[in-house]
Amino acid sequence: MKTRYKQTPVDEFELIERFFNRRVSTPGVVVGIGDDGAVLQPEPGLEQVQVIDMLVEGVHFPANSNAEDIGFRVVAVNLSDIAAMGARPRWMTLALSMPPKNDEWLAAFASGLFEAAGEFDVALVGGDTTGGDVVVATVHVTGEVEAGKALLRSGAEVGDTIFVTGTVGDAAAGLELLGRGERDSFLGNRFLRPRARIETGHQLVGRASAAIDVSDGLFGDLSKLLDASGVGGELDIDRVPMSDAIKARFDESSRTRLALNGGDDYELCFTARPDVVDGIADITAIGKITREPGLTCRQNGVVVEWDDGGYRHFQ
Amino acid sequence: MKTRYKQTPVDEFELIERFFNRRVSTPGVVVGIGDDGAVLQPEPGLEQVQVIDMLVEGVHFPANSNAEDIGFRVVAVNLSDIAAMGARPRWMTLALSMPPKNDEWLAAFASGLFEAAGEFDVALVGGDTTGGDVVVATVHVTGEVEAGKALLRSGAEVGDTIFVTGTVGDAAAGLELLGRGERDSFLGNRFLRPRARIETGHQLVGRASAAIDVSDGLFGDLSKLLDASGVGGELDIDRVPMSDAIKARFDESSRTRLALNGGDDYELCFTARPDVVDGIADITAIGKITREPGLTCRQNGVVVEWDDGGYRHFQ
Repeated sequence: MKTRYKQTPVDEFELIERFFNRRVSTPGVVVGIGDDGAVLQPEPGLEQVQVIDMLVEGVHFPANSNAEDIGFRVVAVNLSDIAAMGARPRWMTLALSMPPKNDEWLAAFASGLFEAAGEFDVALVGGDTTGGDVVVATVHVTGEVEAGKALLRSGAEVGDTIFVTGTVGDAAAGLELLGRGERDSFLGNRFLRPRARIETGHQLVGRASAAIDVSDGLFGDLSKLLDASGVGGELDIDRVPMSDAIKARFDESSRTRLALNGGDDYELCFTARPDVVDGIADITAIGKITREPGLTCRQNGVVVEWDDGGYRHFQ
Repeated sequence: MKTRYKQTPVDEFELIERFFNRRVSTPGVVVGIGDDGAVLQPEPGLEQVQVIDMLVEGVHFPANSNAEDIGFRVVAVNLSDIAAMGARPRWMTLALSMPPKNDEWLAAFASGLFEAAGEFDVALVGGDTTGGDVVVATVHVTGEVEAGKALLRSGAEVGDTIFVTGTVGDAAAGLELLGRGERDSFLGNRFLRPRARIETGHQLVGRASAAIDVSDGLFGDLSKLLDASGVGGELDIDRVPMSDAIKARFDESSRTRLALNGGDDYELCFTARPDVVDGIADITAIGKITREPGLTCRQNGVVVEWDDGGYRHFQ
């Protein structure tokens, strides 16, 4: 905690006690909320994965968004990074800056936060709350993974197959509909309530050669994985998995753009030898790793040029 | 990372690469900046202390403050919490939201950040940068401490002596002068460039019965320690250590108010048996722990009533 040079109506201590201090019996939490810091007992022999991610009102979500959704989402986006590393989430801390809010808002924010965390038994062990003109929510999550086994972006090898979990484009489609004042409950929830692929990430440990979560868009995130691995890739657009909901609401051109360039799906994109992924549910092979750097896209048998900014036929 | 519903001019990847990705050879950093998360190797047998603290433009510092000071201070306030737990800081992550800034601003912010971190060999292992209307900087620090030895607020016992490190009131005095457009370099720097008491905190492990850092003001922070310990205390105001600089600029009444109610000094207030602190430099005994709850203040031999809101003679 630190003094404010301007006094604000947010009483940190009272807030934490009332809305965020849920006593937990999570293993490894020696001292939780209430002291200068949390005291934690890492599991012997494991490595830690640490991630930090923030959501800013007016940037990542519109002003006056539902508080429960904000609370849920700021945890989920962090859990997705933990999933992409193949780790198990254990503890989190929260820094929350906001204008004066009523109890209803805070209770809703806390409810969403604990809902997302509770699914994976992640304990809130510390935090900082303060005033501010807009809502800025930052969450840090600590996970654990077997030593030397964390999934990195950098391990893809020529000949590996490229996979993606679930379907992509849904969150961006949902956001586009919300922007038009429409709401498709499936697509809207894919944006508002992303589910981190913790279980799949864990199953990929020791099997996938590289992984990344699809937060900025499949094309861009896969490109980052290829760059980090020093390889290239071929993406078969026709095989990119899309939901029935997106197919019902968007024509082929639009949904392809959403699937390749839309972010916020929080699926996992990973590479592996095809024979090592038996028994992993809800994954689709969408391409392969090649020697030549860069990402080549094919659609209906022809090479199409694609970039983050748009889409056009190459030949 | 996550998609912005509004595009902002801050290119996260480029920013991180240019300003924040300093390759480190810090022990325990298996994978640093550049993947979905950092991979870290905790020291076997130790417990971790985790803290998170943020600085908000317009709340914790005036708009257009010096970027180097902001970068320094957001690390220092976190390190102070680590010090108050008796831990050694090891790794940190950063979440930075800000309006479009020029390279000079970013270079200065990073310079201050790495200066504060470098003093204690703390590595920046991950982060998130994004747009926003004002600067909101959040830092999370992980420290390590011998298992079962973290300094808590809750261990003070009747008969213990109350100590404080250094001098108090300086930071609030410096801020008050800055607010008047004056600058005393010693007092101003006590606000802008706080030095966490990491070494003292470490020396107190196994000796102090309770500790807290003085971030919100000596009176308030000591009161929190007493409440957490379920005891009371007597504070001898005449013994509260004050700097020559504050004595030169503020009369007795003003400096006493600054010393007891002003925050941001980031000194440590702790309790211990008086005979166990031999050899610990720069500490002053300022009172003792009593059975009766609450904090009683004495000045010039008389009990004075004090609270966070003001100061008045009791009898």
